[in-house]
Amino acid sequence: MKRRFYGLFLRVVLFFSTILVGGLMAQPDVITRDLMPVPAKAEYPGGEYRLTTDFLFKVEGTTTERLNAYATRVLRRLSGRTGLFILQDDVSNSDTLQNAQFTIKFQREGSLKVGEDESYNLTVSEQGVRLEAVTDFGAMRGLETLLQLIDKDEEGYFLPFAKIEDKPFYKWRGLMIDPCRHWMPMEMILRNLDGMAMMKMNVMHFHLSEDQGFRIESKVFPKLTEFGSDGNYFTQDQIKQIIKYAADRGIRVYPEFDVPGHTTAWFAGHPELASQPGPYKIERRWGVFGPVMDPTKESTYEFLDKLFTEMAGLFPDEYFHIGGDEVKPDHWKANQDIQKFMKDNNIADEHALQAYFNKRILKILQKNNKKMVGWDEILQPDMPNEIVIQSWRGKKALLQASKEGYKVILSNGYYIDLSQPTWFHYTNHPISPDTTLPAEQMENILGGEATMWAEMVSNETVDSKIWPRTAAIAERFWSSNQVNDVEDMYRRLDIISVQLEEVGLFHEKNYPMMLRRLTGGEDIAPLKMLVDILEPVKLYERHRLGVKYTQLSPLTRVVDASRPDSKVAREFNALVERYIEHKEGWVEEKLIEQIVGWSTNMTALKVIISRNPILEEIQPHAQTLEVICEMMPELIDMVGDGRKLSPDKLKLLDDFRSKLKPFGQTELMILKGFNALVTACTP
Amino acid sequence: MKRRFYGLFLRVVLFFSTILVGGLMAQPDVITRDLMPVPAKAEYPGGEYRLTTDFLFKVEGTTTERLNAYATRVLRRLSGRTGLFILQDDVSNSDTLQNAQFTIKFQREGSLKVGEDESYNLTVSEQGVRLEAVTDFGAMRGLETLLQLIDKDEEGYFLPFAKIEDKPFYKWRGLMIDPCRHWMPMEMILRNLDGMAMMKMNVMHFHLSEDQGFRIESKVFPKLTEFGSDGNYFTQDQIKQIIKYAADRGIRVYPEFDVPGHTTAWFAGHPELASQPGPYKIERRWGVFGPVMDPTKESTYEFLDKLFTEMAGLFPDEYFHIGGDEVKPDHWKANQDIQKFMKDNNIADEHALQAYFNKRILKILQKNNKKMVGWDEILQPDMPNEIVIQSWRGKKALLQASKEGYKVILSNGYYIDLSQPTWFHYTNHPISPDTTLPAEQMENILGGEATMWAEMVSNETVDSKIWPRTAAIAERFWSSNQVNDVEDMYRRLDIISVQLEEVGLFHEKNYPMMLRRLTGGEDIAPLKMLVDILEPVKLYERHRLGVKYTQLSPLTRVVDASRPDSKVAREFNALVERYIEHKEGWVEEKLIEQIVGWSTNMTALKVIISRNPILEEIQPHAQTLEVICEMMPELIDMVGDGRKLSPDKLKLLDDFRSKLKPFGQTELMILKGFNALVTACTP
Repeated sequence: MKRRFYGLFLRVVLFFSTILVGGLMAQPDVITRDLMPVPAKAEYPGGEYRLTTDFLFKVEGTTTERLNAYATRVLRRLSGRTGLFILQDDVSNSDTLQNAQFTIKFQREGSLKVGEDESYNLTVSEQGVRLEAVTDFGAMRGLETLLQLIDKDEEGYFLPFAKIEDKPFYKWRGLMIDPCRHWMPMEMILRNLDGMAMMKMNVMHFHLSEDQGFRIESKVFPKLTEFGSDGNYFTQDQIKQIIKYAADRGIRVYPEFDVPGHTTAWFAGHPELASQPGPYKIERRWGVFGPVMDPTKESTYEFLDKLFTEMAGLFPDEYFHIGGDEVKPDHWKANQDIQKFMKDNNIADEHALQAYFNKRILKILQKNNKKMVGWDEILQPDMPNEIVIQSWRGKKALLQASKEGYKVILSNGYYIDLSQPTWFHYTNHPISPDTTLPAEQMENILGGEATMWAEMVSNETVDSKIWPRTAAIAERFWSSNQVNDVEDMYRRLDIISVQLEEVGLFHEKNYPMMLRRLTGGEDIAPLKMLVDILEPVKLYERHRLGVKYTQLSPLTRVVDASRPDSKVAREFNALVERYIEHKEGWVEEKLIEQIVGWSTNMTALKVIISRNPILEEIQPHAQTLEVICEMMPELIDMVGDGRKLSPDKLKLLDDFRSKLKPFGQTELMILKGFNALVTACTP
Repeated sequence: MKRRFYGLFLRVVLFFSTILVGGLMAQPDVITRDLMPVPAKAEYPGGEYRLTTDFLFKVEGTTTERLNAYATRVLRRLSGRTGLFILQDDVSNSDTLQNAQFTIKFQREGSLKVGEDESYNLTVSEQGVRLEAVTDFGAMRGLETLLQLIDKDEEGYFLPFAKIEDKPFYKWRGLMIDPCRHWMPMEMILRNLDGMAMMKMNVMHFHLSEDQGFRIESKVFPKLTEFGSDGNYFTQDQIKQIIKYAADRGIRVYPEFDVPGHTTAWFAGHPELASQPGPYKIERRWGVFGPVMDPTKESTYEFLDKLFTEMAGLFPDEYFHIGGDEVKPDHWKANQDIQKFMKDNNIADEHALQAYFNKRILKILQKNNKKMVGWDEILQPDMPNEIVIQSWRGKKALLQASKEGYKVILSNGYYIDLSQPTWFHYTNHPISPDTTLPAEQMENILGGEATMWAEMVSNETVDSKIWPRTAAIAERFWSSNQVNDVEDMYRRLDIISVQLEEVGLFHEKNYPMMLRRLTGGEDIAPLKMLVDILEPVKLYERHRLGVKYTQLSPLTRVVDASRPDSKVAREFNALVERYIEHKEGWVEEKLIEQIVGWSTNMTALKVIISRNPILEEIQPHAQTLEVICEMMPELIDMVGDGRKLSPDKLKLLDDFRSKLKPFGQTELMILKGFNALVTACTP
């Protein structure tokens, strides 16, 4: 019955695809060019420096092995992107290289400390290219800018004449990786370090223990991984390799051992640490659980002293994260000994007990010359100012802590596991552009970290949750907080996303791969057309839609293939908004073209869904798409003519819309545009 | 002028793309189903076993950790492919698992020896699934067959009732990986070991030294990698990890240290080993070079004794490859001391000198309980029968050696770096199906190895040269030599190729990624349509077309993105052949549809090429395609009507065809179909 009614909306459109020869390429003349992050200062006096096979690299004066290697990789990437057979061997400061056209000069080896100088000046002129920096890390940042400057015309590849003076806005520009909830192998870490370096990020926060897994070898306590890792953990050799790989890219690596909660996997091998007798096994579910360390036993501190001393020796960074979040008091309350200890020691409540625990841990870290980092919860009255608070709770907590003299980093608003759109993260500032804070407080706001929690991702899908959105977050951390043009950010992001694939990232290429598995090898084009406009449900909705996820659940369904911030939907919805406002003919044509594309695809899409049981769950989205594609041309007509919907039709429409909801934990993202059309036609 | 003439051929075809709903999926009823390799014996009595979330795995009786882990991975892949939330933790032989519907039983732990039992029986019936094997390796082979048996219909996923008895035809089913000429990182090795296991391959030949790189850490001689590897080599820890990873999949790993030639990279750190004083540095060019070890100095053998003893301890396999190929005598001839040594020791010529060298090496290996493997060249009269000859020269050498009592493996015809089509490798047999050899000689022919030489591949492109073609080679090694249906092989290969992506292989997904880099992020569809019908030139032609390749050349051009054995071209050419023979109307329609597709794409293709200088080199292919797309409809018409070309037109056509050649080291593969049409229309 519904179908018969909406048949009235149907409009047959003959459609010939035309190639839009103009407008395919972004105009490079805008001031930000294709650079991401946007530099502090850039001038383009006009003119081009042509790239040829003679474009040789040389370091002037002293150099470092890591800078030579970095520059060599940049040379190869430049050669790869342009196809130029540049025959230079390794880049170095060799005196024999007289004719180098690209010279790099820096004053000293950078040190992996917070606030190290990462500034650089890059000049392109008729004479060649010159990169100057204080440290080799600064030179690395400039090398990435150089690659982003490459442009092309019919004559070949070139660099525009340029004068760039650049330095970071924040000192701490991080990505947190969680290989605990789902295991992330070595190569995932390495390729993402490469991606981070491309985006001038400088710190990897390595979340190494969780209820669901303890992921680093301890030689002192081998049972931690023997019983707590399913065999999936980093050996100490691998950790050293990761730290070196990161250091060679100017990236600090610091570990997080989340205590006293989030520790079930520890207890699988060491139940004696827990507040309840156990036995314990690796937690497979998601959530906040009861198991928690016993903070009243000296043996707990002896254990942590040995472990953290071992780990402090492994990680040269001056920071050490102890987690401290989401501690449930239940097991403490149920333990008589713990209750007695609290009474005997005048510890008022479980909050105070955690504070006591933290202070004991602080001593262990101080003994090892480490500064403590923790989530909001570790902030308590008598903690020293040297600790760093990582704020997951929000800006209010961040501002309060920085005001009280604590160093802070912002993660609230950068939870990239929650499938929010890029603009949301991009417009989230550690220091808002419209606030003025006392200089001292400003100084305390070190920067931020994107956090890639791994409940719902595997090695196959994780990159698509990190990239390209984290490139925009990296710009937020590097560029001035006055850089806020969302549309221009999206323009550049498309280009940068392709460049990020150069270092092997999966964010783009695993999407069709996953669709191929879903169809067992059939042509994926019809399915792709639908999944292109689906997104995973946002925030924590995936846990709340009738599917019980665990660590063992497959992450290969449509919801896993679908990616945050659908470009097709975003652009369609924007066109709808534009049409409602300006009613331009070319916008109408583009909208109709897109709608006809979806309609024409419907038969093939239905066949694919019917043949692949794993796709059944998104069948309702296909139906919805079919119905709204029948309706939208009529609605667009009505908007164009200024007509309004009759009360009858409106009622039927509202009835239809009230039934729309997520299916297969995905959302149909063009409903926004559809709803806008309905609103525009509502009297 | 040419264009004006060929305009006569132009036929305007209005083209509406229609969705071919039927025929999209392969019929699963053929006897080989979707299995690759084809099992020795398979029956399908009819009926289905439905897969549900209760499909639990259990090992009966004793088990091994590696089999448990393998079965757990298979369980996850099954869950991933079907979307079933199977909540089973790790697979094991736990007694508590009463309701397992898939039971695995094997008699003993397999041993990584040539000829180890890899047979298995797999039964699917109403009662569930049963896998039986002699060794855990046999069970692993059966687990892969299980995954390939998964089928689907509108009700869901199922396994067909089946009774499979399977075992390999050859004992030695290998892939040689060369991380020397271009560096291949850890993850390349691991993901390809996974691919090998899927295809029931059982040996990885690890080519670890070359003129262009020495790729394994020696603790005894650290200068080998310090000066000979550009920092790219496997640590001994990594080698152990690789060997374990392979063993866990029933794959032997044995090393090759190519001596006395192909050793320039050794000499960079150890010039004292060479026959000329040096100094030496890593060779960047490709070819066969002069540097060669000095076989007359005792110090050479002392060095090799220490090194090979160290390496023999690292690799538990009983085989050890010493290369021995392509030794140039020039440096020996030019060295007076060597000439004197030959005279003093009655060594007739440089051939005999290498024989002397090999015998000295043989002793070192024997002392370490290793059996020698070498290329054809090591075969000389008084070598013991236990050595294995790897034949790169051809079947004749292979048959001769096996007749003389030597063990042999075939690599000639399996050089997958040479971009030959799958059918070529597939129809190449170690033991031809039409020969009968004495049983003893048959026994000597152990099997074969696909060899992935790395002059022209990087980590980015290497998988596309290995897969999917090596899956067909793996079938050649596992299945009976009576399995020879090329068409059916291609049908199954398409399905298997998608499954191979499950373990992270790049062969399919890096293709569009590389096209994105070539276009700098523009829509790749127009370019893809052309590159889909291009292939790299075959054999060693890439070295001979005016471009001087070295180790430093970019491997990111169209020729690198293009892949061997173009499916689109193969199918188009086959349709042309079919049309010429049968003149069916539907074939004509399909041909015209394809031709119109190419024609319609031409404008967009030209724009993309003109905007991206790196694409300029394939511009002639676009022009050729445009011209032949104008001509082919008319030629097809002529074939249909039985008309022939006039002498004038024929002359012009021959003139045109005489100018066609490779561009950018790629070939336009549909020229075969075009030429067939011309031939059919030639009086």
